[in-house]
Amino acid sequence: MTESTPAGPVAPSAAAAVRLRPLGVGQVRITGGLAGEWQRRTREVTVPTAVALVESTGTLRNLEIAAGEADGGFQGMHFADSDVAKVLEAVAWRLAAHGPDDDLRRTVDHWTGVLERAQRPDGYLNSWVQITAPDRRYGALVSSHELYCYGHLIQAAVALDRATGDGRLLAVARRVADHVVAEFLRAGRPDLDGHPGVETALVELYRHTGERSYLDQAADFVERRGHGHAGRSDRGSVYLVDHEPVRTSTTLNGHAVRALYLEAGVVDVATETGDDELLAASVRRWEDTVAHKTALTGGHGSRHLFEAFGDRDELPPDQSYNETCAAVASIHWSWRLLLATGEAQFADLVERTLYNTVAASTNVDGDRFFYVNALQRRPDATPPPKGGRRRAWFTCACCPPNVARLLGSLGHYTATTSADGVQLHLFVPAEIQANDGVQLRVATEYPDDGRVRVTVDATPTTPWRLELRLPAWSAPGRTALTVAGTPADVRPDERGYLVVHRAWRAGDTVELDLDVAPRLTYPHRRLDALRGTVAVERGPLVYCFEQVDQPAGVTLDDLALTGGDPLTAHQESSLGLPGPVTVVDTGADVLAAPAHDGPVHDGLPYGAAHAAAPAVKARVTARAVPYHLWDNRDGGAMRVWLPRSPRSTR
Amino acid sequence: MTESTPAGPVAPSAAAAVRLRPLGVGQVRITGGLAGEWQRRTREVTVPTAVALVESTGTLRNLEIAAGEADGGFQGMHFADSDVAKVLEAVAWRLAAHGPDDDLRRTVDHWTGVLERAQRPDGYLNSWVQITAPDRRYGALVSSHELYCYGHLIQAAVALDRATGDGRLLAVARRVADHVVAEFLRAGRPDLDGHPGVETALVELYRHTGERSYLDQAADFVERRGHGHAGRSDRGSVYLVDHEPVRTSTTLNGHAVRALYLEAGVVDVATETGDDELLAASVRRWEDTVAHKTALTGGHGSRHLFEAFGDRDELPPDQSYNETCAAVASIHWSWRLLLATGEAQFADLVERTLYNTVAASTNVDGDRFFYVNALQRRPDATPPPKGGRRRAWFTCACCPPNVARLLGSLGHYTATTSADGVQLHLFVPAEIQANDGVQLRVATEYPDDGRVRVTVDATPTTPWRLELRLPAWSAPGRTALTVAGTPADVRPDERGYLVVHRAWRAGDTVELDLDVAPRLTYPHRRLDALRGTVAVERGPLVYCFEQVDQPAGVTLDDLALTGGDPLTAHQESSLGLPGPVTVVDTGADVLAAPAHDGPVHDGLPYGAAHAAAPAVKARVTARAVPYHLWDNRDGGAMRVWLPRSPRSTR
Repeated sequence: MTESTPAGPVAPSAAAAVRLRPLGVGQVRITGGLAGEWQRRTREVTVPTAVALVESTGTLRNLEIAAGEADGGFQGMHFADSDVAKVLEAVAWRLAAHGPDDDLRRTVDHWTGVLERAQRPDGYLNSWVQITAPDRRYGALVSSHELYCYGHLIQAAVALDRATGDGRLLAVARRVADHVVAEFLRAGRPDLDGHPGVETALVELYRHTGERSYLDQAADFVERRGHGHAGRSDRGSVYLVDHEPVRTSTTLNGHAVRALYLEAGVVDVATETGDDELLAASVRRWEDTVAHKTALTGGHGSRHLFEAFGDRDELPPDQSYNETCAAVASIHWSWRLLLATGEAQFADLVERTLYNTVAASTNVDGDRFFYVNALQRRPDATPPPKGGRRRAWFTCACCPPNVARLLGSLGHYTATTSADGVQLHLFVPAEIQANDGVQLRVATEYPDDGRVRVTVDATPTTPWRLELRLPAWSAPGRTALTVAGTPADVRPDERGYLVVHRAWRAGDTVELDLDVAPRLTYPHRRLDALRGTVAVERGPLVYCFEQVDQPAGVTLDDLALTGGDPLTAHQESSLGLPGPVTVVDTGADVLAAPAHDGPVHDGLPYGAAHAAAPAVKARVTARAVPYHLWDNRDGGAMRVWLPRSPRSTR
Repeated sequence: MTESTPAGPVAPSAAAAVRLRPLGVGQVRITGGLAGEWQRRTREVTVPTAVALVESTGTLRNLEIAAGEADGGFQGMHFADSDVAKVLEAVAWRLAAHGPDDDLRRTVDHWTGVLERAQRPDGYLNSWVQITAPDRRYGALVSSHELYCYGHLIQAAVALDRATGDGRLLAVARRVADHVVAEFLRAGRPDLDGHPGVETALVELYRHTGERSYLDQAADFVERRGHGHAGRSDRGSVYLVDHEPVRTSTTLNGHAVRALYLEAGVVDVATETGDDELLAASVRRWEDTVAHKTALTGGHGSRHLFEAFGDRDELPPDQSYNETCAAVASIHWSWRLLLATGEAQFADLVERTLYNTVAASTNVDGDRFFYVNALQRRPDATPPPKGGRRRAWFTCACCPPNVARLLGSLGHYTATTSADGVQLHLFVPAEIQANDGVQLRVATEYPDDGRVRVTVDATPTTPWRLELRLPAWSAPGRTALTVAGTPADVRPDERGYLVVHRAWRAGDTVELDLDVAPRLTYPHRRLDALRGTVAVERGPLVYCFEQVDQPAGVTLDDLALTGGDPLTAHQESSLGLPGPVTVVDTGADVLAAPAHDGPVHDGLPYGAAHAAAPAVKARVTARAVPYHLWDNRDGGAMRVWLPRSPRSTR
């Protein structure tokens, strides 16, 4: 890595036990494609929207009151300070990705000033406590979340310093962190925040400043978990992610976002301290989570109630929560595990989560947001309060700025370097300046098209390894690799990458042709909520069936797939969505109601076999669109998982 | 009906538009069987337990504080007064069913005295308001639920007067009702309680006293719904059942117990005022609810979040709520519709709900209770707070006394009379003294056995109709009817009853032999959460598979039914449950994990057809027990719905 380039969101120290190292700010420039469009709408709409809303909804004003510069009472969630910080972090990465902006510069200056003046002389900073109960510092961490708010403040401060060289907020953050260390590490205050998040932030601050006590504090917070230090909640210690120590826990339960943020901190501590046991415990939980508690879209959290992971294999498509923040947190966790291990499985989940849950969380205009990302919407639904259609904003405004800070820094998650190579994890059009003078250019229409062309624009003379992730869904036998015009073997290494090791010359190209033919995907038989269904995927994209795209008179819930009908992908420009969209059409059965149209027995929807058996009454062409585009036209019914027809070939 | 016999819980006035009339206290004496056992444990364990807990948990003390007889602060839920009343009602019906008891008599006297002294001179009575904010009467009905508490107080008072002739509490209740009429009907206070319940109580008080203003007030409350008078809740007007007027609403949404209590009041108002439109609207919602929002066990409420009905066809077996109180409320509603219409479908649902959800809500010892009645428990489950195993009591202690008041008055729900006959709705061993000198004796081992013998012990000389409900699950062709030793046609009338119209002689018998052979039941194809599964039923009983009953080494979640294996019912005494239990054994497939034991693709539990397809690795005999007996041995896994094997015959 070029030493002079400031780091991105995650920058392991030189001593960290990581296999891969991320690139710095500006080393990856996304030049177009779907990722470019996400960045555009983030820059043009989401970030300005978030800035305006933080200022208009009283969120910034809370801090102004705490600073003695405004009157009035506290407004919003107790942890509303975190929204100010998260938007500042989004602004930072947006400035890094797209260059200076006078309005945003003024926002940063203004907000930083408010935070400076709200901060107490000893470093303490929390508007809710300062306004409502200044003598109750850290007295209600179970729900006040001062440390969680600090976490976002620290991440924003590091981001601003790295992205723009503006160290003003960093000074605030260091005083905050020093205060935490003095209180919790040195003076031995035993409490723990009900909402993790500060752990990973403290490690990053250690990485950024070299101050070891921040890492020690993070490690201390990680180890405190599971011993009842987070206080008591009606929702149980599992809600506080305080039910089991991180070294022995084998599965994720409770509040999904909290559990996932904690895991990012666990991996950070493990890699910075070389703690293989701690890392292995996190990997174990990751594998369990992926195998038993992850939606096809990468979503996490099966329950609206307490925003919780559910039991193993409890993955309802309709009432799942799959919070947008959980998707962002999951990417943070998987990315850190990828850096630690170099294994493609982690990048696979990053991509799945990014292209589906994260991408779907914002509308195509960039100004409406999902908090909850369900895989099914019934007709005439009465969604729980955070479900339903996308909204313009939320009282608990965690999700939109979370997506904005991720998409603003998306280049960071695209490629890495190792001692002898460069790894390409995400296939986005980009210009990449890697270490030792390597310059790459990635050209692709992915995921509309599976072809990815990497051109080596500059290279040292010594050989090095270009490593391209082979996604698990693209079988080697259906994938092509061409190196400098010559077909090459498609044989992934033990970590899941296609390795091209050679002495490169400027102008060399590598072409990867991934299999993005649409495919049918079936659920494991233990997923009760998905039994007897099938979904359509294409490359990294999960597809969904919206009522609005089906033939006139055909009810979405009557559609069933046979498993034998061809899937046909083609571009369609008349859907009422911006730009051409690659849709997937397929023959489908239309099921008749069993016995009669309604209850099958005793008035109830249960009956004997002959009464309950569905019959096929018609054949139609059903249409699927990428899941990330759903709910952009109307509030009608949607399904990712369609029933298998009784004529199903399996 | 014998005019001198006091009425049971529901006693339509002489002018009411009802087809059937319930019998009075003491006219139906349950003499044994499963219902007798439920009454025994209610009498011996549940009622004394509930009395003791109301006194020990501070619930009664709240009223003592309000009466100025004790010090301290309010304890428990804001509407805790309702628990006092509900337990008093349970005590009343228990005294009616089983005769005097000195301890309970003292309890009634003591508690009534406290309520008398807590009541304000103008009739107002609510300990939470009187203790915490005496000047905020009816100021927070959205959650204080003063009217809901009144409802239970009125029902308890009517019950005590009817069951024991003790009119002391009735005087309190009348003062309460008069206060409500003065405030809400006469003075025009526009508010509405967030929790319905007072409506049906006011109608019953009208029926008991003849005071017309109580009926007018009930009708007024019913009509106020749907116009925003219940206040504002974060959970929405649907949670308050205030989102749509009762005359136009077509489906039940929101909080299940609230919605169901309201319906009981709607039917009461409709029958007492002869309002056919209002009745038709309730019937329409009942049919919609049964067809789309009712679990196989009769449970209602698909969501833990806000204890809500879900969308149509959203019926998850694992995360459904199916609150015990909703089952009681559902029986109240269906029973009133049965009285109004005489149609067996309503009695069918009463029976299904009683023998499954209500029966399962209490353990076999009578001292532990389900709040939530799920149809599936996964291994190593992390249940939501009100889920999991039965508990000894609840902070919100609504459910156990609700079951106790229902079971104590179970005789009331057994038989009715009409102008020219007697109807038998529930098949329980009983002695029935109906109108005009008709005396019947019912002998049966139902539901272990399908034979029900009714002996006419006394009869007038004029002919009359004995009407026996033919449950929808017992097909006429598999049912036998014998009248005075002679086989008779099994041909139900248009309301679903087998009618025997004759001049009876004392000693005549009618024998009904219902088909209680175990049967497989399949879900309607639109029930996404149950697709590809099958359940076992037997007579009115839903069966379930508990891990503890399966062969050693066989994991419950690996079992699948073919649909072709015989079901064998036999009695088993070695299960670790009291008495012999009729179990159902069946051959079952044991499924192997697809592809390999764990994720099928990409680490995720999703994959291509060949990877996801399950295979059969063994054949075993699986065992099912009645659902109402589950969770009496351990906290292991349970399923009502088992997957269909890939070898399934349908």
